[in-house]
Amino acid sequence: MTKLLDTRALHAIVEDVGLDQLMDEMTERLRRVLAEFDSEAISTIPRGGFSYEKPDFGLLEWMPSMERGRRVAIKTVGYHPSNPSTHGLPSVMSTTTLHDATNGRLLALTDSTFLTALRTGAASALATKLLAPRDASVILMIGCGAQAVSQLHAIARVRPIEAVMVFDIDERVANSLAHRLPASLRERISLLALTEDQLPEAIGNVDIICTATSIEPGAERVMPDAPHRDDLHVNAVGADFPGKLELPDAMVHRGTLVPDDIEQCLVEGEAQRLDRCDLGPSLVELSQDPERAAQLAAGLTIFDSTGWAVEDRIAAELALDHATRIGVGIDVELQDFGADPFDPYGLRSTPDRKLGS
Amino acid sequence: MTKLLDTRALHAIVEDVGLDQLMDEMTERLRRVLAEFDSEAISTIPRGGFSYEKPDFGLLEWMPSMERGRRVAIKTVGYHPSNPSTHGLPSVMSTTTLHDATNGRLLALTDSTFLTALRTGAASALATKLLAPRDASVILMIGCGAQAVSQLHAIARVRPIEAVMVFDIDERVANSLAHRLPASLRERISLLALTEDQLPEAIGNVDIICTATSIEPGAERVMPDAPHRDDLHVNAVGADFPGKLELPDAMVHRGTLVPDDIEQCLVEGEAQRLDRCDLGPSLVELSQDPERAAQLAAGLTIFDSTGWAVEDRIAAELALDHATRIGVGIDVELQDFGADPFDPYGLRSTPDRKLGS
Repeated sequence: MTKLLDTRALHAIVEDVGLDQLMDEMTERLRRVLAEFDSEAISTIPRGGFSYEKPDFGLLEWMPSMERGRRVAIKTVGYHPSNPSTHGLPSVMSTTTLHDATNGRLLALTDSTFLTALRTGAASALATKLLAPRDASVILMIGCGAQAVSQLHAIARVRPIEAVMVFDIDERVANSLAHRLPASLRERISLLALTEDQLPEAIGNVDIICTATSIEPGAERVMPDAPHRDDLHVNAVGADFPGKLELPDAMVHRGTLVPDDIEQCLVEGEAQRLDRCDLGPSLVELSQDPERAAQLAAGLTIFDSTGWAVEDRIAAELALDHATRIGVGIDVELQDFGADPFDPYGLRSTPDRKLGS
Repeated sequence: MTKLLDTRALHAIVEDVGLDQLMDEMTERLRRVLAEFDSEAISTIPRGGFSYEKPDFGLLEWMPSMERGRRVAIKTVGYHPSNPSTHGLPSVMSTTTLHDATNGRLLALTDSTFLTALRTGAASALATKLLAPRDASVILMIGCGAQAVSQLHAIARVRPIEAVMVFDIDERVANSLAHRLPASLRERISLLALTEDQLPEAIGNVDIICTATSIEPGAERVMPDAPHRDDLHVNAVGADFPGKLELPDAMVHRGTLVPDDIEQCLVEGEAQRLDRCDLGPSLVELSQDPERAAQLAAGLTIFDSTGWAVEDRIAAELALDHATRIGVGIDVELQDFGADPFDPYGLRSTPDRKLGS
């Protein structure tokens, strides 16, 4: 049997578990996997993909990850910035297949659009917990699309956030962000939309910055450089393609850059501008050495979140575990082979057909 | 809507269309795509994958292919030679996802275990049509597992096959092959199982050889070298992993090797032993120049069939077209997002829940 998790099954999980609890579970599962990370047992392969310019700029990528002897997860993720305006669809849409790594059988297929937002939030929560000021209460959010929702939600789970300043080049998207936040968070924070020329001043007044824009590869940075508190922490979420960069060069050179996936960050993250030797410790290394993280947290820290296949496997398994527990999802006999494994033509007929023939 | 093609939907297609007609359609669609091949419009990315030794040797690979501006297909294929004996499952099991290449939406998921056998057969039919003696009536089949079924079926669709000599290191598998062939083919041919020491003589008495074994990477060649007719044609199907080789070195150096995917063949096909400059024209080139194929056919020709992602996209689309036409498959709202593309948490509830809440 192959289990399908459609958006309704995911909704049922959210209703049962609650968004706060689900974010906390995702963050904790990720923390545990990273703290015990064993590169013999867990493998990823750099994501590959197709990109195109017509009809609009878009990408379709696959992100494979394996827990040896157990499971392979392959997330297929599309990034189509024109989706919201052209098709009324999310710009990041994805699905994940989970396979048995001993015989290749397809165990599950899940929509991963919600799960991608969840795991990207959880990665930032983990980085924030390790690197942001303990008393951080004010965030600057640059880019107010879908990812901003789970970023703010996740960060507010690990720091006493009270105020959020937001900026988006599309004013309507900035103004609608409040309505998209979980109710518990919306009631707790004050939200202030900024104009572009207010950004430099804002940078000086916040404890955490998060960037998650759909800026085009090769475009000018969205974020200006400006004075900020010494121990500012930045979650840089948007850079995930060669040429796509959000942070000012000077800030990236000044701070400690913490990659999620070192190789991937050097190719498509904020780290594109750095040499390998200029990178800070990775999120895995810091998860295994929280003392070192605490020392680094006294200065400027930048989490270079390009999105890691390991996170996707954990998110898909978290969803599958809950779906199995509460009995949601659709079970399909997708691979109900005939009795003879050497007979590719021996496809099983449906029971009806058998009776009828 | 996402359409799922399970093995029952595929069975219904086979019942409706017929195996012969389906093989002919697959071969003809492939011929047309290759004859009109436009590398601007059609892209593939070399397959990537995980391989492992425990509990048994196995592979899980992904094979992506794009028709620009239209569709991306990603076949995920497992190769687990111990599956039949250990799990009663086929050694090659796979699924394919089809995505809209303008917005990333998942259009379809199909089991591809049957379709992989079909398309691998069709590729050999195409190569055989271009390169084998016109009057070829006797085949030597080395390796009698699942792929042998569709190889013999496909080749017999394009040449007047009357007799098949078969060899497998597992005598039971060799003896059961007849029962797995389509009835129309079984009635038409005589089948003779050989012992290993009869192979050299058999090679001198056949018009076409096909190899499709599960030999381990690094093992000694399954096929001996021996005198053969000048215009022998070989479909070498098994080699698809570094170190996995079926044909004797001398034969590969002596013949014209026709790769399906040049880069892939150099890494994991029979062409592993050749320099790039020693390769013959590819199946694409010959499909565009049948006269050149006819000239080469006077000598020894070897089709190096490693399996090509383009074939998988065509096979998945052929199945999807028939499924849509006869109304089989399962339609699932896998990606039924909420009304706001910027709200990843705005998952739609089930209609029941909406009414109930």
